[in-house]
Amino acid sequence: MEGHLNIGGMVFPSMDQMDFTGPFEVLSRIPNSKFHVLWKQKVPISDAHGLILTPDTTFTESPRLDLLVVPGGHGQEALMNDDEVLQFIQEQARSAKCVLSVCTGALLCGAAGLLRGVRATTHWSAFHLLGYFGAIPTRRRVVVDGRHISASGVTAGIDGALRIACLLRGERVAKEIQLSIEYEPEPPFKSGTPATAPPDVVEAARASVRGITSVRHATARRIAPALGIERRL
Amino acid sequence: MEGHLNIGGMVFPSMDQMDFTGPFEVLSRIPNSKFHVLWKQKVPISDAHGLILTPDTTFTESPRLDLLVVPGGHGQEALMNDDEVLQFIQEQARSAKCVLSVCTGALLCGAAGLLRGVRATTHWSAFHLLGYFGAIPTRRRVVVDGRHISASGVTAGIDGALRIACLLRGERVAKEIQLSIEYEPEPPFKSGTPATAPPDVVEAARASVRGITSVRHATARRIAPALGIERRL
Repeated sequence: MEGHLNIGGMVFPSMDQMDFTGPFEVLSRIPNSKFHVLWKQKVPISDAHGLILTPDTTFTESPRLDLLVVPGGHGQEALMNDDEVLQFIQEQARSAKCVLSVCTGALLCGAAGLLRGVRATTHWSAFHLLGYFGAIPTRRRVVVDGRHISASGVTAGIDGALRIACLLRGERVAKEIQLSIEYEPEPPFKSGTPATAPPDVVEAARASVRGITSVRHATARRIAPALGIERRL
Repeated sequence: MEGHLNIGGMVFPSMDQMDFTGPFEVLSRIPNSKFHVLWKQKVPISDAHGLILTPDTTFTESPRLDLLVVPGGHGQEALMNDDEVLQFIQEQARSAKCVLSVCTGALLCGAAGLLRGVRATTHWSAFHLLGYFGAIPTRRRVVVDGRHISASGVTAGIDGALRIACLLRGERVAKEIQLSIEYEPEPPFKSGTPATAPPDVVEAARASVRGITSVRHATARRIAPALGIERRL
């Protein structure tokens, strides 16, 4: 049996719950590990669609983590200038074996300065913002670059977490977890990315996120110079 | 805009959270709908791996549901003789447009008498138990038989929920949801079902669920005759 792993995943108001619950499902099954559900206080939060999640560990109570999971969703935007959150990410990232960002959790990692010169991905609607944080935008479902693993949108956190289970504990453990959660997906449509979805569906989906996307863009433009990051194009 | 939909998903102690959070992620995005998180009381429950979920609606407060989601996981076993739970499922199923069982939530639906003569699936470890409840065991990831939709293990709830979004609101809505959650999965291994996973992985996974599986088997054997169900072989 390999050494004990402390795994932590952040939750926060108006997050996208599956960015967190996908990785939780995989990572909480790693033998000899403890999964901490992290936030500033141990008070219930509501995700973007109303699911109540309750942290069990505050940032100050958190042990040094071997793996930190940073989810995204609409609520990520409100944390882009939140020193308590960004410092927690920075401090844990310094000693962690890996950091997994899911969806627009990548923007939080970017604001924390973790993506300078790092190949990374995020939700398709925010992909064009990665460069502001010094990242090397990389259009894949899961990008592994050294200790930073990034998963694209929402459901990609499951794929990212399985990759990490393999990195931390080997292929055999990852395969057993994949079987236990019967992960042999059959998406009913070809509509999972802008490249494969029908054009009218892409247009509607883009329109529905136009507001939050332009707010995220403005924030990225404002934050990047303050971080001393030169935008990569 | 089509009529308002009341959607409800049960949570319960020692459930598998993703059986619920997968469908929640999809179904909470259906336009003009309300997702109710249901349990006996509005008190936090802990899933099989320690995630705290909090219901927002009690069984008695619940409106008539257009769609009921019944998840599974280890904790399903404790509900197989629970009249309050089984009656709630029966009553809601009577008027619902659809019922979605995920994973061993199918056994709960079976104990509620919903699967008599119905083609259905469940987690691979419990598939051999479906016959006790009068179901027609059907080895597919998602089985649609009239108003009963069943998804196999854990992650299959995402596929099942997308199929239901399509049934209830059409392909266009389902495709937009699929794109918004970037559901174009890339499982890292061929290890999602006993038919595709390496034999040693299958053996280890079977061993790890042998205890709960034999308890479920004994319960199915005991309950089926009481339900007046003749086992299908």
